[in-house]
Amino acid sequence: MSTATIAKDRVFNFSAGPATLPESVLKQAQEDSWNIFDSGIGIMEHSHRGAAFDRVMQEAIDDCRAIGNIGDEFEVLFLQGGASTQFGMIPMSFLGKDQTADYADTGVWTTKAIAEGKRFGDVNIAYDGTALNFDRVPTAADLNLTDNAAYFHYCSNNTIYGTRYNEPPTTSAPMICDTSSEMFSRPFDFASHSMIYAGAQKNLGPSGVTLVLIRKDFAEKANPEVFSMMNYNKLIAGGSRFNTPPTFGIYMMGQVFKWILAQGGLPAIEQINTQKAQLLYDVIDEHDFYNGHSQKDCRSIMNVTFRTPNEDLDAKFLAEAATQRMSGLKGHRKVGGIRASIYNAFPTEGCEVLAQFMRDFAQQNG
Amino acid sequence: MSTATIAKDRVFNFSAGPATLPESVLKQAQEDSWNIFDSGIGIMEHSHRGAAFDRVMQEAIDDCRAIGNIGDEFEVLFLQGGASTQFGMIPMSFLGKDQTADYADTGVWTTKAIAEGKRFGDVNIAYDGTALNFDRVPTAADLNLTDNAAYFHYCSNNTIYGTRYNEPPTTSAPMICDTSSEMFSRPFDFASHSMIYAGAQKNLGPSGVTLVLIRKDFAEKANPEVFSMMNYNKLIAGGSRFNTPPTFGIYMMGQVFKWILAQGGLPAIEQINTQKAQLLYDVIDEHDFYNGHSQKDCRSIMNVTFRTPNEDLDAKFLAEAATQRMSGLKGHRKVGGIRASIYNAFPTEGCEVLAQFMRDFAQQNG
Repeated sequence: MSTATIAKDRVFNFSAGPATLPESVLKQAQEDSWNIFDSGIGIMEHSHRGAAFDRVMQEAIDDCRAIGNIGDEFEVLFLQGGASTQFGMIPMSFLGKDQTADYADTGVWTTKAIAEGKRFGDVNIAYDGTALNFDRVPTAADLNLTDNAAYFHYCSNNTIYGTRYNEPPTTSAPMICDTSSEMFSRPFDFASHSMIYAGAQKNLGPSGVTLVLIRKDFAEKANPEVFSMMNYNKLIAGGSRFNTPPTFGIYMMGQVFKWILAQGGLPAIEQINTQKAQLLYDVIDEHDFYNGHSQKDCRSIMNVTFRTPNEDLDAKFLAEAATQRMSGLKGHRKVGGIRASIYNAFPTEGCEVLAQFMRDFAQQNG
Repeated sequence: MSTATIAKDRVFNFSAGPATLPESVLKQAQEDSWNIFDSGIGIMEHSHRGAAFDRVMQEAIDDCRAIGNIGDEFEVLFLQGGASTQFGMIPMSFLGKDQTADYADTGVWTTKAIAEGKRFGDVNIAYDGTALNFDRVPTAADLNLTDNAAYFHYCSNNTIYGTRYNEPPTTSAPMICDTSSEMFSRPFDFASHSMIYAGAQKNLGPSGVTLVLIRKDFAEKANPEVFSMMNYNKLIAGGSRFNTPPTFGIYMMGQVFKWILAQGGLPAIEQINTQKAQLLYDVIDEHDFYNGHSQKDCRSIMNVTFRTPNEDLDAKFLAEAATQRMSGLKGHRKVGGIRASIYNAFPTEGCEVLAQFMRDFAQQNG
């Protein structure tokens, strides 16, 4: 299994993003940065309109479609500006006057999306997890939806809190999902959505490129008056090349797509990811010493969040882990404690090492 | 001279952008992609809020200031979306109702900037080079400026046409300059401007990151109502990290900055660039066979544009050059013929080889 372990001169990188990448992809990128396809030119130096990049782009699109079983009813776009730019582009494009958009608020990132939405129109907060410090996602019964909403926006995996929707909600409004922190980590019902988007820097590649899957018939509804770089239809017409795209980021995403396919695609990836996460959740559940943040029924398999009995022990945990080749475990300030981000490319060995460390630490400090 | 030549397995890459990068930078990036600063983590995999990237970012800012003698009255920003996004952000932020912005139209890119400007307010085309197919830039007398314009926007080097302003214009309005295709290729009077911006993919790094230098007192005038990712003051307050920035692109730009400093900074770079361009312009001027597009008094030292006597010979020129390790010489369709883009990182040897090829080709086909 190529995800099993890491090279001797590298550490277990639990960073929430930008995050660890497959080592085989890094090695391929080293070669292709110098000279790709025997062209005598590195991937970063090729024209975005030339044959070499045409091939990189087409393979990335084809592999993306293959991984997610994304049909021709969707456009596959590679954009810039991260999910945060989508937070503005979506209401600017799809939230008309006299319309309301529904948003489920499950944490910092959806809160930001809501704030941007309100700049452009009427927003209904269909679920507000604030009072519970976002320790769960809404059930169907929790959602207070608007009739004829312009769209329903949610975030399928909440990086900071370690929660996820096990299945997408069901709404009559077009569904738009921010999948940044779990894109292509498990089989997912893309087809029930009008739009799915994900910043690359967690599961898909380096930061600076955003994957957007958008239904053609939904895109057609976008406001045509917005300026060109915010105009989905101009970006679609340009094949993600209305202007110079982030060519290296797209190349890297394409290489990660090939790696996902080589792992066996989403069913195999999900199995590995579930096993990795279970190694950590088992320790949390077996020790009163640890307190998981997410409710059990909506635990993320990408971001595992927990606390020790107090902040001093949290700090001691992080300091000792850092001496054992484990980096990036500090929890977000909104939750505190520990966060282990274990995206697709994070090696199983790292979860085994952390799980053993957690057991030892609980025994020594409990 | 580190710009003198290229490795045996690489070709002379005359691409207009994305464009050739210094080979020493590519080699450093290969190492740092695997493990930077002996952290056990590659540059693409580091958190944008961690110590390793803090160092990368701070060095990039410091080196940028050192190269351009950019004072503290300017903010140094690394944004996404290319110059095309600036085309929208600038009028959205700085062109108020009842105001007019002046634009000098010197080619395709300024024409695009004007089109975006008109979405937001009143635009005065202070110079229109269309009738001359943009074979020159305006003199001071050519500029039809508005009293109390919100700003004056121009492009200092026109990639497609091979023209440049030898010196910035003088206007009473705040000056905003798109320097994408010549940024840090020669000493430049940055201080006379309110804002300078450049997509990285010609002189500064890979595509996907845009360098923006903006005066603090000018930024303060920006419309605060625009959405966050278009809001200069939020991006400034976030230190280019309002959201996850394109960390690898910023790293690469920082490496190119170090390379520029190692070359001797802008005076030395200008001397090399002038010599490189002169090798080609000399052949054009010595042979009636070649017809340069730009008027002589505003020739670019970054993009050298010329035609042979007819399109068949243009095609033959390109085909034969491709067999001699020369790539990317086809002119833009708006001008036709040949375009040699010879940015900072393009090696002198490549200009010598092309100049000799041009002489031989003229002799054989003249």
